[in-house]
Amino acid sequence: MANSPSGDSMTARIVRVLETFTAERSLQTTAEIGRRASLPSTTAHRIVDELVASGLLERDEDRRVHLGMHLWELALRGSTALRLRQAALPHMEAVQARIREHTQLAVLEQDEALFLERLSHPDAGANITRVAGRLPVHASSSGLVLLAYAPASVRERVLAGPLRALTPETVTDAARLRRVLAEVRRTGVVVAPGSVETVSTGIAVPIRDRGEVVAALSVVLPRETSPEPSIAALRDAAAAIEAALRADRR
Amino acid sequence: MANSPSGDSMTARIVRVLETFTAERSLQTTAEIGRRASLPSTTAHRIVDELVASGLLERDEDRRVHLGMHLWELALRGSTALRLRQAALPHMEAVQARIREHTQLAVLEQDEALFLERLSHPDAGANITRVAGRLPVHASSSGLVLLAYAPASVRERVLAGPLRALTPETVTDAARLRRVLAEVRRTGVVVAPGSVETVSTGIAVPIRDRGEVVAALSVVLPRETSPEPSIAALRDAAAAIEAALRADRR
Repeated sequence: MANSPSGDSMTARIVRVLETFTAERSLQTTAEIGRRASLPSTTAHRIVDELVASGLLERDEDRRVHLGMHLWELALRGSTALRLRQAALPHMEAVQARIREHTQLAVLEQDEALFLERLSHPDAGANITRVAGRLPVHASSSGLVLLAYAPASVRERVLAGPLRALTPETVTDAARLRRVLAEVRRTGVVVAPGSVETVSTGIAVPIRDRGEVVAALSVVLPRETSPEPSIAALRDAAAAIEAALRADRR
Repeated sequence: MANSPSGDSMTARIVRVLETFTAERSLQTTAEIGRRASLPSTTAHRIVDELVASGLLERDEDRRVHLGMHLWELALRGSTALRLRQAALPHMEAVQARIREHTQLAVLEQDEALFLERLSHPDAGANITRVAGRLPVHASSSGLVLLAYAPASVRERVLAGPLRALTPETVTDAARLRRVLAEVRRTGVVVAPGSVETVSTGIAVPIRDRGEVVAALSVVLPRETSPEPSIAALRDAAAAIEAALRADRR
């Protein structure tokens, strides 16, 4: 009943509409949304009208459409992301106070590293990650941690490629990547110089909840900065976040 | 075509399903969701299945359902909330470092104060606000700021009541509340002792973007703490956040 002639569900079409919004494209006309979501004009108008009526989308004075505050509220108030992020935030601030660069929290989502939080010092160096942004798991330090401890099925799917090079230093050879991941599991830390941007080094450690790696905590440093103080700060913070997650469950 | 016999749209039913999830109820069975969203069992199962297929909901090993990481990602990556919150966060940390209590950022949403961010010192006192949580605009210090500068239509709707008392000190008389709001517009600050919880004082200031008040920045202090240092810290931070929002637009 709710399916279109092409067989996709109404839910799938609503998700396609929401997916047209990105950080670079936060304000769109209904015509643009319809085109980008591959929906007929009448369908796009009806779905956008309904989403505006429910508060998931909002219209500005020029009738352009943006994501609604109610969508943000619904997505956050019962979310796993928020629990993890609230447990981590005070300890990310502690890393930030010690290292004064970028500090990030990421989870594995659809075979990519999805960033839940980023704190940045005003004088910090280059860093392309952002909140609700993604990076490939084989390139970013956070992703390498998440991949090292991921279920074997995920790891094999990623290793089967394609493994895109973000810089000349990104590891894109499956056999070499396999050795990198084994080393991560042995040492419990990733130091990835130049793997995402040639000018910076990513350093990441795992965060465990009930024995499973649920997130990666990372810093991004200018290439010339020594990684040792960051490794110590990240390990302290990861232990504190794991304790906070345990306390939160009780 | 996508409407049920009762006339509500498929979009409205999907929103009702998402609205059953809260901080206290983050994990539910499909039967519970159906009951709480007032949906027939077959409809609830179909919508939940479709939402799981699209990643907006996820199932755990016991087939209980929780909000999906993809919903969080969609809601955040193009959102106004994220832009405001990223501009504010470094300056909220500065308030936090000076005052060492709770620091919050709130916006007006459907006649209530919706909290976008909260930073808390480990030793801070009582505070019932939380991220993606709401408080009545006539009771919370953030709400009083947002109400003081809200469109007249919103202000009159709220003043028409009902104005619920959270404590014996909540202002629930419309004429008195009108005088409080005029005073807020005159001084640019709210100091609300005991209005949400008898043991604490909320202090809030407005944040403007393009000449309009778009948010309230607040701290929550133990009742016995002097408000003056907090007022100064909040005013400094609000000015810095307003500068960050101007810079972000260029």
